Amino acid sequence: MVDLDQVATLDLGREARRGYPEAVFCAGKSVDQLTAIAAEIGRVGQRTLFTRADPAQAAAVLAQLPDAHHDAEARLIAWPADPPAPSGGLIVVATAGTSDLPVAREALLTARHLGREAELVVDVGVAGLHRILAKLELLRRARVIVVVAGMDGALPSVVAGLVSAPVVAVPTSVGYGAAFEGLAALLTMLNACAPGVAVVNIDNGYGAGHLAAQIAAA
Amino acid sequence: MVDLDQVATLDLGREARRGYPEAVFCAGKSVDQLTAIAAEIGRVGQRTLFTRADPAQAAAVLAQLPDAHHDAEARLIAWPADPPAPSGGLIVVATAGTSDLPVAREALLTARHLGREAELVVDVGVAGLHRILAKLELLRRARVIVVVAGMDGALPSVVAGLVSAPVVAVPTSVGYGAAFEGLAALLTMLNACAPGVAVVNIDNGYGAGHLAAQIAAA
Amino acid sequence: MVDLDQVATLDLGREARRGYPEAVFCAGKSVDQLTAIAAEIGRVGQRTLFTRADPAQAAAVLAQLPDAHHDAEARLIAWPADPPAPSGGLIVVATAGTSDLPVAREALLTARHLGREAELVVDVGVAGLHRILAKLELLRRARVIVVVAGMDGALPSVVAGLVSAPVVAVPTSVGYGAAFEGLAALLTMLNACAPGVAVVNIDNGYGAGHLAAQIAAA
Amino acid sequence: MVDLDQVATLDLGREARRGYPEAVFCAGKSVDQLTAIAAEIGRVGQRTLFTRADPAQAAAVLAQLPDAHHDAEARLIAWPADPPAPSGGLIVVATAGTSDLPVAREALLTARHLGREAELVVDVGVAGLHRILAKLELLRRARVIVVVAGMDGALPSVVAGLVSAPVVAVPTSVGYGAAFEGLAALLTMLNACAPGVAVVNIDNGYGAGHLAAQIAAA
Amino acid sequence: MVDLDQVATLDLGREARRGYPEAVFCAGKSVDQLTAIAAEIGRVGQRTLFTRADPAQAAAVLAQLPDAHHDAEARLIAWPADPPAPSGGLIVVATAGTSDLPVAREALLTARHLGREAELVVDVGVAGLHRILAKLELLRRARVIVVVAGMDGALPSVVAGLVSAPVVAVPTSVGYGAAFEGLAALLTMLNACAPGVAVVNIDNGYGAGHLAAQIAAA
Amino acid sequence: MVDLDQVATLDLGREARRGYPEAVFCAGKSVDQLTAIAAEIGRVGQRTLFTRADPAQAAAVLAQLPDAHHDAEARLIAWPADPPAPSGGLIVVATAGTSDLPVAREALLTARHLGREAELVVDVGVAGLHRILAKLELLRRARVIVVVAGMDGALPSVVAGLVSAPVVAVPTSVGYGAAFEGLAALLTMLNACAPGVAVVNIDNGYGAGHLAAQIAAA
Amino acid sequence: MVDLDQVATLDLGREARRGYPEAVFCAGKSVDQLTAIAAEIGRVGQRTLFTRADPAQAAAVLAQLPDAHHDAEARLIAWPADPPAPSGGLIVVATAGTSDLPVAREALLTARHLGREAELVVDVGVAGLHRILAKLELLRRARVIVVVAGMDGALPSVVAGLVSAPVVAVPTSVGYGAAFEGLAALLTMLNACAPGVAVVNIDNGYGAGHLAAQIAAA
Amino acid sequence: MVDLDQVATLDLGREARRGYPEAVFCAGKSVDQLTAIAAEIGRVGQRTLFTRADPAQAAAVLAQLPDAHHDAEARLIAWPADPPAPSGGLIVVATAGTSDLPVAREALLTARHLGREAELVVDVGVAGLHRILAKLELLRRARVIVVVAGMDGALPSVVAGLVSAPVVAVPTSVGYGAAFEGLAALLTMLNACAPGVAVVNIDNGYGAGHLAAQIAAA
Ligand SMILES: Nc1ncnc2c1ncn2[C@@H]1O[C@H](COP(=O)(O)O)[C@@H](O)[C@H]1O
Ligand SMILES: Nc1ncnc2c1ncn2[C@@H]1O[C@H](COP(=O)(O)O)[C@@H](O)[C@H]1O
Ligand SMILES: Nc1ncnc2c1ncn2[C@@H]1O[C@H](COP(=O)(O)O)[C@@H](O)[C@H]1O
Ligand SMILES: Nc1ncnc2c1ncn2[C@@H]1O[C@H](COP(=O)(O)O)[C@@H](O)[C@H]1O
Ligand SMILES: [Mg+2]
Ligand SMILES: [Mg+2]
Ligand SMILES: [Mg+2]
Ligand SMILES: [Mg+2]
Ligand SMILES: [Mg+2]
Ligand SMILES: [Mg+2]
Ligand SMILES: [Mg+2]
Ligand SMILES: [Mg+2]
Repeated sequence: MVDLDQVATLDLGREARRGYPEAVFCAGKSVDQLTAIAAEIGRVGQRTLFTRADPAQAAAVLAQLPDAHHDAEARLIAWPADPPAPSGGLIVVATAGTSDLPVAREALLTARHLGREAELVVDVGVAGLHRILAKLELLRRARVIVVVAGMDGALPSVVAGLVSAPVVAVPTSVGYGAAFEGLAALLTMLNACAPGVAVVNIDNGYGAGHLAAQIAAA
Repeated sequence: MVDLDQVATLDLGREARRGYPEAVFCAGKSVDQLTAIAAEIGRVGQRTLFTRADPAQAAAVLAQLPDAHHDAEARLIAWPADPPAPSGGLIVVATAGTSDLPVAREALLTARHLGREAELVVDVGVAGLHRILAKLELLRRARVIVVVAGMDGALPSVVAGLVSAPVVAVPTSVGYGAAFEGLAALLTMLNACAPGVAVVNIDNGYGAGHLAAQIAAA
Repeated sequence: MVDLDQVATLDLGREARRGYPEAVFCAGKSVDQLTAIAAEIGRVGQRTLFTRADPAQAAAVLAQLPDAHHDAEARLIAWPADPPAPSGGLIVVATAGTSDLPVAREALLTARHLGREAELVVDVGVAGLHRILAKLELLRRARVIVVVAGMDGALPSVVAGLVSAPVVAVPTSVGYGAAFEGLAALLTMLNACAPGVAVVNIDNGYGAGHLAAQIAAA
Repeated sequence: MVDLDQVATLDLGREARRGYPEAVFCAGKSVDQLTAIAAEIGRVGQRTLFTRADPAQAAAVLAQLPDAHHDAEARLIAWPADPPAPSGGLIVVATAGTSDLPVAREALLTARHLGREAELVVDVGVAGLHRILAKLELLRRARVIVVVAGMDGALPSVVAGLVSAPVVAVPTSVGYGAAFEGLAALLTMLNACAPGVAVVNIDNGYGAGHLAAQIAAA
Repeated sequence: MVDLDQVATLDLGREARRGYPEAVFCAGKSVDQLTAIAAEIGRVGQRTLFTRADPAQAAAVLAQLPDAHHDAEARLIAWPADPPAPSGGLIVVATAGTSDLPVAREALLTARHLGREAELVVDVGVAGLHRILAKLELLRRARVIVVVAGMDGALPSVVAGLVSAPVVAVPTSVGYGAAFEGLAALLTMLNACAPGVAVVNIDNGYGAGHLAAQIAAA
Repeated sequence: MVDLDQVATLDLGREARRGYPEAVFCAGKSVDQLTAIAAEIGRVGQRTLFTRADPAQAAAVLAQLPDAHHDAEARLIAWPADPPAPSGGLIVVATAGTSDLPVAREALLTARHLGREAELVVDVGVAGLHRILAKLELLRRARVIVVVAGMDGALPSVVAGLVSAPVVAVPTSVGYGAAFEGLAALLTMLNACAPGVAVVNIDNGYGAGHLAAQIAAA
Repeated sequence: MVDLDQVATLDLGREARRGYPEAVFCAGKSVDQLTAIAAEIGRVGQRTLFTRADPAQAAAVLAQLPDAHHDAEARLIAWPADPPAPSGGLIVVATAGTSDLPVAREALLTARHLGREAELVVDVGVAGLHRILAKLELLRRARVIVVVAGMDGALPSVVAGLVSAPVVAVPTSVGYGAAFEGLAALLTMLNACAPGVAVVNIDNGYGAGHLAAQIAAA
Repeated sequence: MVDLDQVATLDLGREARRGYPEAVFCAGKSVDQLTAIAAEIGRVGQRTLFTRADPAQAAAVLAQLPDAHHDAEARLIAWPADPPAPSGGLIVVATAGTSDLPVAREALLTARHLGREAELVVDVGVAGLHRILAKLELLRRARVIVVVAGMDGALPSVVAGLVSAPVVAVPTSVGYGAAFEGLAALLTMLNACAPGVAVVNIDNGYGAGHLAAQIAAA
C-alpha cells in the first residue's frame, strides 16, 4: 500500500466545519491511491462519498469498505451504506430525458446521504409539456427542485417559472453536434429567462445534490 | 455618383429564377454605393428589400426611391412600398420578450413583402408559460411559425412540441454575459428537443421571414 | 425488465397532437431501458422511430419488435417496417460527398416514414460544380431540398441560390482539423449568402427529415 | 404612448404564482416601450423591479412612477420604493474587489426588495486572504452568501470551503484579456473544488439576489 | 519628434533580403510614432507601404511624405506613389459582395505596388452563380486569384474547383451574428472541399496581395 | 460490390479542367464504398490519390489497384505508383519537429505525384534557431516552401522573413493542452508577422502539397 | 468623499507580507472611489502603483497625490514618484513591434518601481530576425527577459531558445481578425517549443514587471 | 534502425548555449524513431530527458539506454539516472488534489534533473484552506513555488498572495464538463488576482520544472 501522505491530505474536519462530510473524487486516481484513501477512511470512521468511480476504482474502495453502498449507474459509493435519517425540506429531482438518469441518480443519492428526503421524476422534457405540468403538485411541495437536462437544457426555465422554490439546474452531456458535450445546455441554464435558477457544472450530479441538501436544510 | 460596375453586380434575375426578389444588405456599404445601387433599382424597376439600413443609409436609399416604405425599428426599406396581395398560408411571428421586437418586425415585414399574410404575437416567453398557451389556437392555424428569442432561447422547443407546423427559430443577441451575443440562444435552438425547428442566423429576421414565406407558399 | 416508470414517460399523444409520431433517441440509453421502451411501444401499438441506435441497442429493440425495419448505416429502426403511403410534395436529399451518406440516409428514411416521397442524390459538392448543375431539373421539382455537407458546408448556399424551394441544411462532422467536428459547416450554413436556408444540428439527419416532411406536407 | 399590447405581455400573475414579483429587463427596450410598461405597472399597482436601466431608460420609468427608488450604480429601479419588512434568513453579499460593486449592489437591493435582510462586505478577494478570514463570524451567521468576483473568480471556492451555507457565485466582467468578459470567472465558479456553489450568469446581480431570497425564505 | 530608436527598428534590409519592401502596420501606433517613422523612410528613400491607417494616421504620414499615394477606402498609403512597372503573371481579385470592397482594394493595390498587374471583379458571390461563371475566361487567364468573401465564405471553394491557378482566400468580417467577425468565413476557407486554397487572416488584404505577388512572380 | 451511383459521383474531368487529378478522401468511407470507387478508377484509368486511408481502407484500395504505391506513414495511396516526370520549380518541405513527419510526408508525396521536384528537411524548429539557418541556401533555391509545425507554430513566420518565396504553412495537431489539437499553431500562422504565408487546414498535408505544386508550376 | 469602508479593503500589509507593495487596479472604479482610495494611501504613506488609469482616473489620483509620477502611455501612476534604489539582477524588456510599447512600458516601469534595473529594446520581431540577434549580448546579461508581442507571438520562443535566463512572455492585443484580441499570441506562448517561458495575461504589463522583479530579486 | 537524419536534428548544443540539456518530446514519435534518437544520445553521451513517454516508447528508449531512470507515473525518463548535485534555491511543488500528481511529479523530477533541490506537498487545495496554511513555513523557504491544480485552478492565487517568491502555475486537465480539459484552470491562473503568477501550458509539468529551475538558479 502506498504511503497516504504521498497521495492525499484528507479533509477530515469538513463535517465539523461545514456540516457535510468529505467526498473523494475518484477520476484520475489510481487503484493504489484509492486503496490507501479508503483504508484510512475506514480507520478513522469518517462518513464519506466516493464519486465518479469506474468499476475498477469501485472494486478497490469496496475491498477496503465492504459494507459500503455502491450505485453503479450513478458511479457513487456511500460509506456507511445507510443514509442518516432525513431532516429539512423535500428535494425533487426531475430529468428531461431518460439519458439524463445517471446524473440524476447521483444527485438523488447524494441528497439522501447528506440527510434529505428526495424523490425522482423522469423524462418530463418540454417537447411534451403536459408531462411536467402533470407533476406540478409534487413540484410545489418541494423546498428545492433539481432539474437535470441535456440538449437544449430548456426544462429549468420552464420549471422555475411555475414554482416559488429555487431550481438547481444540472446540464448534461446528453446530445451531439452543437450540444458540444453539454455546453449548449449549460449556456441555456445560465441565461434562464425565469429567475431562481442555480447552475452547477455539466454532469455534476454530486454538486447538485449537495447544494440542494444545503438549501433544504432545516 | 460612383460607377455601379465598380461596386455591385445586382442579381436582377433572382425573382425570375427563384420567385423572390433581390435584397440589398446595407451593412458595410457606403452612402455612395447605396445611392448607385438604389438608383439602378429604380431605373430597372425591380422589386427590392434593403436590410440592416442605418439612418444615413436609409436616407440615401430614400433619396433615390422616395416612394419606398421605411420601417426604422426593423431597419428595413421596401420598394415598392406596398406588399403584393397575400397568397399561401398564414405566418405567425412570436417573440419571447419585448427586446426581440426589432428582429421580429424584420421577419414580419419581409414575409409580407414576399407575399404572405403574417401576424405578430409579443412577449410570450417561457418564464410565464400561460402566455404562449393562451395563443395556441392562433399558433395551430399557422402554416409556419417564426419564433424569435434571446437569452435562453427556450421558446421554439416549447412551441414546436405543441403544433404540427414547422418552426423557424431566430436567436437574438438580447441578453448579456453568457448569452454571448446570441450564441446561447442559437445553441439552444440547434439542440431543440422537439423536432421541426429550422434555425437561422442570430438576429436574422430577414432570413427568417424569407424562409417562412417559402415554406408557406401555396 | 426494468419498470418503465422509472426510465421514461413516453409521449404517446404526440401523433395526435402534432401529426408526427414519437421518436426514441437511443444514445445514452441502456439495453435494459430500450427493452422496456420497445416492449411498451409494441404493447400500445404506437408508430415509432428509434434513432442513433448502435448495434447492441438495435438488437435490443429488434428483440421486442422483430418485424421492425433496421437501417444500420443510418442507425435507424422504424416500426412498423413499412412507411405510410406518401402524401404531400417531393423531398430531394443531396450530399456533398460520399462520407455524408449515413446522415443523408437518416434524413431520407425519416422523411419516408413520416409519409413523404423522397429521393437521394449523392456526392455533388461544389468542388466539381457540374455535378449539382446536372441535377437542376430534379431539384426544381422538389417542394423542399435537404442538403447534407461537411468540411466547408458550401453546397446549401449554392443550391438555395438556384431554386425557389426552401433548403434544409445539415452540417456533418465529416472533415478534420479546423472542421471542428462540423462546426465549420454549421457556421457556413447559418451565414448562407442566399436566403432560404433552414439549419439543423450537426449530423441531425432525423431532424432534417422531420422538418422536410413538415414543410412538404400537403 | 405606444399600445402596450404591441410591446409586452406583462406577467402580472407572477407574484401570486411564484411569490416574487415581475422584473422588467430594460436593456434593449426603447424609452417609448418602457413608458408604456411603467404606466401600466403604476395603473395595476403591481410591485416591480426594473433592471439594467441606463440613465435615459431610468428617466422614462421615473416619469411614470415618480415615487420609485432608483440606484444608479446598480442600474435598478424599485417600485414601490420601500422594501417589504424582512423575513427569512440573513443574506451576506461579499465582493472580491471594488470594481465588482455595481453587480453586488444589484444583488443586495434585489434581495432586500424581495423581503430579506442583506449585508454587504467589500473587497475581500483571495490575494489578501486575511480580509475574508476576518469576516468569518458574519459569514457563518448567513443563511446564504452571495459572492461576487471577476478576474480569477476564486473567492467562492474559498468561502464555500469555510461555511455550511450555500454560496451563490456571480462572475463579473471585471478584468481584461483572458478574463474574456467574465468567462474565466464563470468557469472557475462552475468548477469550484468546494461543493455548495450555485452559479448565475456573468454580471447577473439581479438573478443572484433573487435566488438568494428564495434560498433564505423562511 | 520622438527618438526613432525608442519606437521602431525599421527592417530596411527587407527589400534586399526578400525582394519585397517593408510595410508599416499603422494600427496601434501614435501620430508621433508614425511621424518619426515616415520621416526616417523619407530620409533613407526606402519604398514602403503603410497599412490600416486611419485618417489621423494617414495625415501624419502624408505630412512627412506629401507625394505618397493614399487610398482611403483601402486605408493604404504607398510611397512612392507610382507602382513599379509590372512583371510576372496576372492577378485577379474577386469579391463575393460589395461590402468586401475595402479589403479587396487593399489586396489589389498591394499587388500593384509590389510589381504585378492586377484586375478587380466585384460582387460575384455564389447566391447568384451565373455572376462568377460569367467571369471564367478572365479567371482562367490569371496566374493566381485572390477571392475576398465574408458571411459563408463559400466563393473560394467554387472558384478553386474551376481553375488550375492557386486561390488566395481572404475571409472578411462582413456579416453579423454567427459570422463571428469573419470566423465563419475563415473556417469555411480552411475546409475548402477543392484543393488549392491558400488562406490568410480575416480582412488581411495586404497579406493576400503580398502572397499573390510572390506566387505570380516571374 | 455496391452500386457506384449510390455512393459517389467521381469528378473524372478534374484533370482536364484543372490540370491536377482527383483525390479520394478515405476518412468516413466504408471498405465497400472504397472498393467500388477504386474499381471504377482502375476501369477508367484515371490518375488518383487516396488520402487519409487507414490500414483497412488501404487494403481495400490495394485489392483493386494492386500496383498502386502506399505510404503508410503518410496514409497516402498513389495510382499509378510512379509520379510523372517533374516540371516547374523546386518545393522544399520543412518540419519543426519529428512528430510532424506524417503530415510532411503527405505534402511531399502529393507534390511529387502532381509533378514537382520536392525535398524534405526535418526537425528544424525555432527552439534551436541554428538548425533552420543552416538550411538557408536550400530554402532560397525553392520556388515555394512548405513549413509543417505544431505546438507554437512559429517556424513559418521565421522562414517567411528570410526568403522571397511564398511559404505554405501547415499547422499540425502535435502538442497537448492549450495546443487545442492544432488550433494554437493555426492561429499563429494566420497572424504571421512576416507576409507571404499561405495557411491550410490543420494536418492537411495533401492540401499543402497540392497548393505548392500549383504555385511551383512552370 | 465616499466612505472608504464601503468601497475598498486595502491590503496595506502586502509589502510586509510579500515584499512588494499594493497596486490599485483602476479599471471599473469610479472617480469618487479612486479619490477615497488615493486619499487613504496618502494618509497612511503606503508605496503604491495605480494601474490601467484612464485620463479622468489619473486626474483623480493625482489630485490626492500631486507628487506622484504618471506615465500616460503606460497608464501607470507611481507614488512616491521615485523608484527605490535598484537591487537584484538586470531585467530586459523587449517588444516585437512598435504597437506593443504601452504594455512594454507598463512592465518596465513596474519593474523599476519594485526595485530593479530594467532596460528596453523595441521592435525586434521575428519577421526580421537579425534585429533580435543583434541584441544577443544584452539579452545574455539579463537575469530575466520580458518579451512583449502581439499577432503571432513568436518572439518568446525564439528568445528562450537562445539564452539561459527565464523569459516572461506577455501577449498583447495588437493585431486583428484571427489574432482574437491577443488570444493567438497567448496560445503561441503557452505552447512555446523552447522551455523556460512564463506566460501572463494578455496586455498584462504590470503582472510581467512584477513577476520579473520577483525572479530577479537578489 | 531508421536513418537519424530523416527523423531528427538533435539540438546537442543546447546545454552549452542555454545551460540546460535537450529534452525529447516522445508523443507522436514512433518506436523506431525513438530508438534511433536514444541510440544517438547514448553515442554522443548527452544528458537528456525523455518526456510524455507511453510504456512502449519508454521500453524503446530503455532498450538503448538501459541505465536510464524511468518514472512511469510522470512518464519521464532521465539519462543518466542520477540528477546532478543540487545548486541554487529550493523549489516546492504543491498540488491542489491527488489527481494532479502525475503532472506534479513530472515537474519535481525535471527540476531535480536540472540540478535543483525540490520538495513535494500534496492535496492542499482551497476547499480545505487549513491544509495550505499549515505549509506556510515551508512555502516561505522556497525560491520559487510550483503550484499544480485542475478544476477551478484557484490555489496559485492563494499561494501567491501569501509569499514573496514567484509562483509557477500549472493548470491540469483534472476535472470534467466545464473544466474543458484544463481550460478553466488555465484561465483562472492567467487572471490570478495576486501578481507573481507565471503560467505554463495545461499538464506541462516538464515546462514548469524547467522554468522553476531557471528561476531558482544560483
Ligand atoms: N439582412 C440580411 N441577412 C442576411 N443576408 C442578407 C440580408 N440582406 C440581404 N441578404 C442577402 O445578401 C445578398 C446581398 O449581399 P450584397 O451583394 O452584399 O448586397 C442578398 O442577395 C441577400 O441574399
Ligand atoms: N437583469 C436581469 N437579468 C436576467 N433576467 C432578468 C433581468 N431582469 C429581469 N429579468 C427577467 O426577464 C424577464 C423580463 O424580460 P422582458 O419580458 O424582456 O422584460 C423578467 O420576468 C425577469 O424574469
Ligand atoms: N486529405 C484531404 N484533405 C482535404 N481535402 C481532401 C483530402 N483528400 C481529398 N480531398 C478533397 O476532397 C474531395 C473528395 O471528397 P470525397 O468526394 O468525399 O471523396 C477531393 O476531390 C479533394 O478535392
Ligand atoms: N493591471 C493589473 N492587472 C492585473 N492585476 C492587477 C493590476 N493592477 C492591480 N492588480 C492586482 O489587483 C489587485 C487590486 O484589485 P482591486 O482591489 O480591484 O484594486 C491588486 O492588489 C493587484 O494585485
Ligand atoms: Mg424522453
Ligand atoms: Mg417579457
Ligand atoms: Mg466527392
Ligand atoms: Mg481589492
Ligand atoms: Mg451582392
Ligand atoms: Mg525536435
Ligand atoms: Mg516592426
Ligand atoms: Mg483532495
